[in-house]
Amino acid sequence: MSRHIIFYANSYDPFAQRAFIVLNEKKQSVERRDLQDLPERHKLFNLSGTQLPVLVVDDIPIQLMMLICEYLDETMGPTTLHPKDPMQRAIHNYHCEIGTWMLVTMAQLHRSADKDQLNSKAETIRTMLGVLENKLDGSPYFSGDTFSFVDIWFGTIAPYFDVYEQHTDLDFLGRRPRLRTYFANLTARESVAKAIPLDAKEHMLQAMKDRNSEFSRILGAR
Amino acid sequence: MSRHIIFYANSYDPFAQRAFIVLNEKKQSVERRDLQDLPERHKLFNLSGTQLPVLVVDDIPIQLMMLICEYLDETMGPTTLHPKDPMQRAIHNYHCEIGTWMLVTMAQLHRSADKDQLNSKAETIRTMLGVLENKLDGSPYFSGDTFSFVDIWFGTIAPYFDVYEQHTDLDFLGRRPRLRTYFANLTARESVAKAIPLDAKEHMLQAMKDRNSEFSRILGAR
Repeated sequence: MSRHIIFYANSYDPFAQRAFIVLNEKKQSVERRDLQDLPERHKLFNLSGTQLPVLVVDDIPIQLMMLICEYLDETMGPTTLHPKDPMQRAIHNYHCEIGTWMLVTMAQLHRSADKDQLNSKAETIRTMLGVLENKLDGSPYFSGDTFSFVDIWFGTIAPYFDVYEQHTDLDFLGRRPRLRTYFANLTARESVAKAIPLDAKEHMLQAMKDRNSEFSRILGAR
Repeated sequence: MSRHIIFYANSYDPFAQRAFIVLNEKKQSVERRDLQDLPERHKLFNLSGTQLPVLVVDDIPIQLMMLICEYLDETMGPTTLHPKDPMQRAIHNYHCEIGTWMLVTMAQLHRSADKDQLNSKAETIRTMLGVLENKLDGSPYFSGDTFSFVDIWFGTIAPYFDVYEQHTDLDFLGRRPRLRTYFANLTARESVAKAIPLDAKEHMLQAMKDRNSEFSRILGAR
């Protein structure tokens, strides 16, 4: 039974890149179109008011990245990216959620109007990095040698920290060697590397500079 | 293998009530304690900064209501509250998310500082009610005769609309007869009725009045 699947998404979007990684892991591909070409009838409500990536399967739209990624994981070969044990899955899902909260907070960091906001957002990001690092045991991935959704969620986040390291003094990973190694493992994985455009970091840096925010100013100062 | 489960939650919390309904559906109970008694070691990070309900299973904490409810559904007898088909589950999950967004927006409505904010939040709620109603086909529940997570999510929301109807002119359900019947079906279900304290509506009304917001003022005016 062949399904017609189209993924409407932008390739620089770290949320959308999660699905590209899932597809790479599954060695599958689907038709890809720009998010701006999403037909009106497939536009689904969300609270942010901006258009989120949408997977359309036989003319039925799915929105929200966890739902899209779970759907792909479960329908393209055996489910491999999420633990089967209910408690382990709850723990994995919670840490995926931290990845989502981190991306949201990073966007607020980039937009921060003054030093106080910048420091407050940076502090929240540090707290979340601490939560993640506490769960890492020195294995290559979040769950030993098994690559899973949590690794995908942080795989699309890791390149931002390269940009922070190179262009700011925020020193997020300074005293976090396990996290630094973990992020390097993620971006080195083929499925992740292939999902992130080659010029992604230049693109991030330009977007951060264009914000005209306190964060843009600290980038320029270095 | 017997597990020791404690649910730290407040009984008036519409988010926490979802888990009470799941337990009622499963004809199971767990030890219940006040959220303020949650031990320090079980406090998990979340972006809101407020303490969310936590389920502690053999000393391991789970946070976020969907994760708690999925865990209970999957470990207390056969999984019955979530569809097995991946596409159906994505659709159900998306509509649960609308229920969560609605509760968040309702809290903003209650806190609104002026008429513009109040109208804008009311409008967002109307949009979400429209999305939900479009999926209802006149069956008792979201998915025909099968009671599921979506019904649980909206089951703890429905009583608020009774309060809105009785104490405001917002008329959320005025031209939505299917939704009105659906909400009545939900609150009539035994598992839902038992999960919501008898004086919940008085409690809601008092909390709304205490906000000292534009919404408090329109309550007083009627």
